[in-house]
Amino acid sequence: MAALSHHEITMFLLAIAVLLGVARILGEIARVLHQPAVLGEILAGVLLGPTLFGRLYPELQASLFPLDGPQAVAMQGLFLVAVTLFLLVAGMEVDLSVAFRQGKAAISVAFFGMIVPFALGFGFSWFFPWLLMAVEPGKELVFALFFATALSISALPVIAKILKDLNLIKTDMGVIIIASATVNDLLGWIIFAVVLGMMGTGQNSLSLGMVIGLTLLFTCGMLTVGRIMVHRLLPWLQAHTSWPAGVLGFALTGSLVCAAFTEWIGIHAIFGAFIFGVALGDSRHLRERTRATLDQFISFIFAPLFFASIGLMVDFVSNFNLIAVVVVFVLATIGKLSGCYWGGRLAGLDKRECWAIGYAQNARGAMEIILGLLALQFGVIDEPMFVALVIMALVTSMLAGTLMQKVLKRAKTNHFSDFLSSKAFVPDLNASTRDAGIRRLAEAVCAGTTLDVEKITNAVLERESLMPTGLPNRIAIPHARVANLTRPIIAAGLSHEGIDFDAPDGHPASLIFLILTPDNDPSAQLQILSGIAGVAKSPALVDELLHAQNFTELLALLKARDEILGGQPAAAH
Amino acid sequence: MAALSHHEITMFLLAIAVLLGVARILGEIARVLHQPAVLGEILAGVLLGPTLFGRLYPELQASLFPLDGPQAVAMQGLFLVAVTLFLLVAGMEVDLSVAFRQGKAAISVAFFGMIVPFALGFGFSWFFPWLLMAVEPGKELVFALFFATALSISALPVIAKILKDLNLIKTDMGVIIIASATVNDLLGWIIFAVVLGMMGTGQNSLSLGMVIGLTLLFTCGMLTVGRIMVHRLLPWLQAHTSWPAGVLGFALTGSLVCAAFTEWIGIHAIFGAFIFGVALGDSRHLRERTRATLDQFISFIFAPLFFASIGLMVDFVSNFNLIAVVVVFVLATIGKLSGCYWGGRLAGLDKRECWAIGYAQNARGAMEIILGLLALQFGVIDEPMFVALVIMALVTSMLAGTLMQKVLKRAKTNHFSDFLSSKAFVPDLNASTRDAGIRRLAEAVCAGTTLDVEKITNAVLERESLMPTGLPNRIAIPHARVANLTRPIIAAGLSHEGIDFDAPDGHPASLIFLILTPDNDPSAQLQILSGIAGVAKSPALVDELLHAQNFTELLALLKARDEILGGQPAAAH
Repeated sequence: MAALSHHEITMFLLAIAVLLGVARILGEIARVLHQPAVLGEILAGVLLGPTLFGRLYPELQASLFPLDGPQAVAMQGLFLVAVTLFLLVAGMEVDLSVAFRQGKAAISVAFFGMIVPFALGFGFSWFFPWLLMAVEPGKELVFALFFATALSISALPVIAKILKDLNLIKTDMGVIIIASATVNDLLGWIIFAVVLGMMGTGQNSLSLGMVIGLTLLFTCGMLTVGRIMVHRLLPWLQAHTSWPAGVLGFALTGSLVCAAFTEWIGIHAIFGAFIFGVALGDSRHLRERTRATLDQFISFIFAPLFFASIGLMVDFVSNFNLIAVVVVFVLATIGKLSGCYWGGRLAGLDKRECWAIGYAQNARGAMEIILGLLALQFGVIDEPMFVALVIMALVTSMLAGTLMQKVLKRAKTNHFSDFLSSKAFVPDLNASTRDAGIRRLAEAVCAGTTLDVEKITNAVLERESLMPTGLPNRIAIPHARVANLTRPIIAAGLSHEGIDFDAPDGHPASLIFLILTPDNDPSAQLQILSGIAGVAKSPALVDELLHAQNFTELLALLKARDEILGGQPAAAH
Repeated sequence: MAALSHHEITMFLLAIAVLLGVARILGEIARVLHQPAVLGEILAGVLLGPTLFGRLYPELQASLFPLDGPQAVAMQGLFLVAVTLFLLVAGMEVDLSVAFRQGKAAISVAFFGMIVPFALGFGFSWFFPWLLMAVEPGKELVFALFFATALSISALPVIAKILKDLNLIKTDMGVIIIASATVNDLLGWIIFAVVLGMMGTGQNSLSLGMVIGLTLLFTCGMLTVGRIMVHRLLPWLQAHTSWPAGVLGFALTGSLVCAAFTEWIGIHAIFGAFIFGVALGDSRHLRERTRATLDQFISFIFAPLFFASIGLMVDFVSNFNLIAVVVVFVLATIGKLSGCYWGGRLAGLDKRECWAIGYAQNARGAMEIILGLLALQFGVIDEPMFVALVIMALVTSMLAGTLMQKVLKRAKTNHFSDFLSSKAFVPDLNASTRDAGIRRLAEAVCAGTTLDVEKITNAVLERESLMPTGLPNRIAIPHARVANLTRPIIAAGLSHEGIDFDAPDGHPASLIFLILTPDNDPSAQLQILSGIAGVAKSPALVDELLHAQNFTELLALLKARDEILGGQPAAAH
């Protein structure tokens, strides 16, 4: 076979660019709509694949994303590396120590949350396989085992992201959810690896017993001896190799070696990368910075590429089977919800909490999709079944956050920059006195609303007279609570001469935030004030903010800073 | 053509792991020997390629790194993405504003440092091509142009790394070197793109005039309008997309689109990625953190993979032609040194500086190798000529640092952790008084040396009596200058009870560094003391250091911290 030709190289690069670009754009749109990024990324593939683009412009589509030939092989290699590294990062998020530390409740939720959907899935697909798909004779057991596993796993990354958004991650319930999802995730993958071994036998010379034996040996070895060795090796690497090159190289080399090993066993490469990720991520010697570099590059580049590639492979319209979609979704949801609910009740949790845990665990996210893809490639399921699994994974992930929010009556935490707007930005706050400055900002904030400038100004000044709101580093935060406000509003003003707000460090304020919050929501005010106080602690950031040329630059600085400080994990897949 | 089989997937993943692992290990060894990482990375490929591994185990080598078949195509695709992204990062390091700000000296050095080797290379290859290689009839002009360009470029990343190591980067000379190398790099690549266009015509339907026209249009467009658009877009992306996902996705999509475009023109993909990198890196809106994530992942993962792949392609032993190697090296060095020297002299720089500039600019590094590889792929040069260029690039890079150090009589800057050793580490410093603690550390430091414990202890105590050396955050730095010491030595001790060193915050010291420096090197002491004082400023770091289980963990924490604070750029290629 020839190497890539000039034309194929051009199309290969263009195809990656288009896939990545569209996946990132739709991923961002999903995020704005408070949905997991993976939803947009898969949609990108659906649009660019046979479902839409291929229907409209079959020739153009085929030249950009051909199904065979050198270009297709090069793409396949890249997607393989992408999914392998994505599983490395997914494994790194698994924190075994959290799972071990948790007591009765987590174990009970994990056990019932896994066994109930597993039994339901196994029973259903054993007795009514024809409702799901035409199963080849002799493959009934493998299919039933696969379907049972598919219903019982959870998507740790999506769940962690939802808990973080709802500010629940550090609560008792959050820890129970994370711990039980971790156990689910890990056990689910081990069972699935065994199922894969059953599907894949014949690919190499190993017997099924050997495959299962090697899988368990590898898993147990990596999670005990391997984990300790990684933990010991990391400080040595940091001490004696260039930083972070040594650790990055080790992480990728290790995950690729493990991936090659599990691929050789016959249980697919990604399992090895995932288990290596668990061993690596568990070490407290892995520095935050190194973790973030791996996480960001892989989650924001490789993962979107991989998830978009899924849409390229399958026609989501012609393979849409309503019965399969409904059955899969209903079984998955009933199994998971009832399992988690009763697991929680038995451990003595109250009803509301149990529902919330069930909703969270029901999110299947990226893991389900990868599982389905492998089953499709191994010939265990057909395209309509795969489409049903993908839709179930996406819908359960989309519902999880909303349902939890409802049952727990919790609002999403917002960053104060979410309440800024370009309309209420005064780039040149020309005011010689504090009161005039506040009035000017109140005018900006009230323009186009039913708020009364006079009332707002007086309320803020009254608050100001109780205690001045000047912070160190040239920031001031005049504020007031306002009746009948549905959400907080913040106006921002830049004053080059500075306005005296009686700050503790004696400096006049150059960056002034006027903060109005609903009078029935005291926590919103507290959150906003402490957010801005965090900014005031960094003189370098304040300095950059004061040099912002326009509202977008100001917002860009606050957002970038926010996520740096927040130590946000990457996209929720 | 079929997709990758199970066996091919296994070998593909294993091949990447082996290539990356060996490249990283040899890259680290090169670094320890104060050589550029690219040296070790290329050597990794040479060892794993036909030169060694292929000679010893031809079958094994061919199954891991086959020359054709799907596995080879998948590898080619990956290497293509790797080199494209490497050029993105290389472009990001080009700072146009530095080049524009510099005056006469930089322009003079850049001009003569480019024109002299260019003329020398062109003249030589025009009149004596047979000394270099057998040039096909009709290709004389293209070869001469290529060879002239090859002699006249510089490797900005390697040069920047050397200047940083010698602490010269912020000096007048450092800025002149960087500015002139930037101009060289940029002009060299543009000329080379045109040469590539001349080589590549016939691949697509464009005429040579069209190719050159499009190249210049693309370059000028990207460096003016494109640059401004990127600069405007970045704050918007940071303000309105998730951070840093939006910017990362934009950077990669943009570079791939530009790469596909220049590949289509016929001047190779990497040129587009490079120019896009220049436009992107030039914006002050690109946050340091985003830059570092891109830089680290690409420089430490993709670059080693790509450079190792070069060794896989060519047999470095059978294609070694001593005459070509010597001629290329001598011509390159004479041309660059004399050009830079006279360029500097004409601008009024003194002789020593001119030599130093010449030595620095003579480093060809990774850029030369990529240039040679493209020429090889386009059939303009043959394997022996390619080997000669690679050797020239590596040797000139290796010599640059050493020669500059010699002519400028500058020592490399060291981090204080370089002077720590496990032998002089006292994990449990049981001492109730300051004097006993110092004596205990002096014993540790003197063990196995000719130093006298008594003398050292007294010298340190005498210094201590002048002014106590307790720092805030439980750190103390007793120190003394010692006669006849060739290099600084530092002992480190951890005291769990703490020892009173009369710190300004009143806390006893738990982490004590005993610092001995040569009495004829006052700057060494100052550097070490300020390095440790930097550590003392971070309570979080001190806390982690106090919990270090052993010397390696302590060193790991100091190294990781050091490079974080230093904002070190990635490997020097």
